[in-house]
Amino acid sequence: MHDRSDSRIDRIERLQRLSAATDGLLSLAGGLPSDDLFPRRLLADAFVRAVSTPRCAALQYGWPEGSEGLRRWIAGRLTARGAPVSSDDVIVTSGAQQALAIAAELLAIDGRRVAVDRESYPGALDLFRARGARLVTLEDDAAYAYVVVGASNPRGVGLGDERRRALLASGEILVVDEAYAELRFDGRIERPLLADAPDRVLHVGTVSKTLCPGLRVGWLVAPPRLRAEALHIKRDIDLQAGSLAQAVLEAYFASSDFDAHLARAQKTYAARAERLVRALRRELPWLRFVEPEGGFAVFVETDEDDVDEARALAVATSHGVSFDPAGMFRADGSTSPFGMRLSCSQLAGGALDEAVRRLRRALDDVLHARHAAE
Amino acid sequence: MHDRSDSRIDRIERLQRLSAATDGLLSLAGGLPSDDLFPRRLLADAFVRAVSTPRCAALQYGWPEGSEGLRRWIAGRLTARGAPVSSDDVIVTSGAQQALAIAAELLAIDGRRVAVDRESYPGALDLFRARGARLVTLEDDAAYAYVVVGASNPRGVGLGDERRRALLASGEILVVDEAYAELRFDGRIERPLLADAPDRVLHVGTVSKTLCPGLRVGWLVAPPRLRAEALHIKRDIDLQAGSLAQAVLEAYFASSDFDAHLARAQKTYAARAERLVRALRRELPWLRFVEPEGGFAVFVETDEDDVDEARALAVATSHGVSFDPAGMFRADGSTSPFGMRLSCSQLAGGALDEAVRRLRRALDDVLHARHAAE
Repeated sequence: MHDRSDSRIDRIERLQRLSAATDGLLSLAGGLPSDDLFPRRLLADAFVRAVSTPRCAALQYGWPEGSEGLRRWIAGRLTARGAPVSSDDVIVTSGAQQALAIAAELLAIDGRRVAVDRESYPGALDLFRARGARLVTLEDDAAYAYVVVGASNPRGVGLGDERRRALLASGEILVVDEAYAELRFDGRIERPLLADAPDRVLHVGTVSKTLCPGLRVGWLVAPPRLRAEALHIKRDIDLQAGSLAQAVLEAYFASSDFDAHLARAQKTYAARAERLVRALRRELPWLRFVEPEGGFAVFVETDEDDVDEARALAVATSHGVSFDPAGMFRADGSTSPFGMRLSCSQLAGGALDEAVRRLRRALDDVLHARHAAE
Repeated sequence: MHDRSDSRIDRIERLQRLSAATDGLLSLAGGLPSDDLFPRRLLADAFVRAVSTPRCAALQYGWPEGSEGLRRWIAGRLTARGAPVSSDDVIVTSGAQQALAIAAELLAIDGRRVAVDRESYPGALDLFRARGARLVTLEDDAAYAYVVVGASNPRGVGLGDERRRALLASGEILVVDEAYAELRFDGRIERPLLADAPDRVLHVGTVSKTLCPGLRVGWLVAPPRLRAEALHIKRDIDLQAGSLAQAVLEAYFASSDFDAHLARAQKTYAARAERLVRALRRELPWLRFVEPEGGFAVFVETDEDDVDEARALAVATSHGVSFDPAGMFRADGSTSPFGMRLSCSQLAGGALDEAVRRLRRALDDVLHARHAAE
């Protein structure tokens, strides 16, 4: 098993908790969707409808695979995107993270090589490591590959045709994470890899980024030969996803235009990303980054090696800004070169500009102090 | 790993799904609380309050351990019962089942002996088997013991002073499941085992039986030395319990008298159990059972060996009644002697009498046919 006693990670987590609790701090940390986009009233209406049905299924136990209506909705959207999926193929999970955990158990990744992007979603990396997988990069041979498609995490870039073809040609079992797939700034939603390799793709989706994380609803579509076992695992680990959250979601989808909501979200995040990019070019022109095509963040790197990430975060916090250090996203855990994921999802307009100014001052402190000490 | 390809279990599950979907069927199956007791309006009010806060934490991500307010409430109740627990000791889980799954992973039960009652909660038995544990009965030496306290499942009886002393003296690590602990008919809530062995008890609680299962909220209190790892596991498997469900629950607890609700629930289930027991004595006086002290059910046994449980359930379904076959509750999986868990939680008054009359006719068919065939 992976050694969890990494004091660096613990220190960073303590700092993240501290900064989250600090009044007036401008957070560029966390993959949190914007509160402004939560359809509170529509969800409240959906709740009232969900608890007003005669048998009140919303408050009762349900089956491990999830509610039929919600699975039909999920299947319908995948089918419309070119992956003909029926409601029976879908397992509703307690968020995308649980879908990944079921995939890891299904694939018995202990001791196996799992290929990931050089930077990827920390929740998946931690999970795979804890389950004994050996993380390698996507160019290497591996039994399995994990990819965040549409807009990757942390870089926010799409898969691209070449990478897509290579993955499909690899013969590897693919765990495909669509957490941000519907949040590309160009509004394009890529054809699911599931459409082209239904026997080799474990498809993971969620409403946590597009609608709200508080419902804790995601889903897994596993290859047919693995479905019965996936359902057994789901039952063992928590019986079922929350009935109430599923019922609220089903009622919300039945009475609202989710595509219109997505379009609003894409536009909002595109504007924030553009503002963040402009502020970075102005205040910190020496940072290296690729402009994101979607998602919540910009992943930036410096030319500095061996920066103490926890110290850098502590300094940033003292300047009233926070970020996610690059090390947690890197498959090899490396903290060099020093880098950061800067999320713009929770800040808008002038607050983004101010956050970047604070970041510049913090980096001045961190990097000057280093150079002075050399 | 445990072989899941048990066609008997699969047949029984198909029958349970069929009977659940059959109009007019009177269900004595399932550990489902009564819909009548769901405080729908209070929960709807709680929902509205939960999504009306400025930052709307109910719809956003939270920390893996769960919301501070809810953990404080859980800790407060345990403290009042003699187990001095702080909110930091509590991890909110996606139902009690997930608390058990975290416990199983924390304790690395693969290949280890886990002592359980001769009959116990199937969700725990299946989980422990799937994780490679060797199930033995509580009299045997084991590394770990799993007990459902207050009112056991399926028998609905309390732990008793002697068993309690023996468990505490055993030196075993105890996984203590309090799912039904607050649903004793005498209203007594036992002192938590956690109070007497905080270093050896993994305490599991939930609101699924007392309030409603649809929220999917349970909790785990692990011994101090295991807490950091428990939290890592929780984060790996689904990041956190649903923020919305936690916020609704917290708002509900803040504005309602949960003890009064418990008293109503105890009274309701006591009346149903009494009616079921009377009907069984009248219609099926040859069944063996112990009168339950709490919970939702009566566990009955016959003197018949080698009855095909799936066939018996199919016959019962054709008579318009269902039950849970004894085999799924037995640690050794044995289906002999033939027995049934009969839940009265979802039926009241005359419907219970009628369900038992149907059950008598079904058993007449099943057992006569057997005797005729002998």
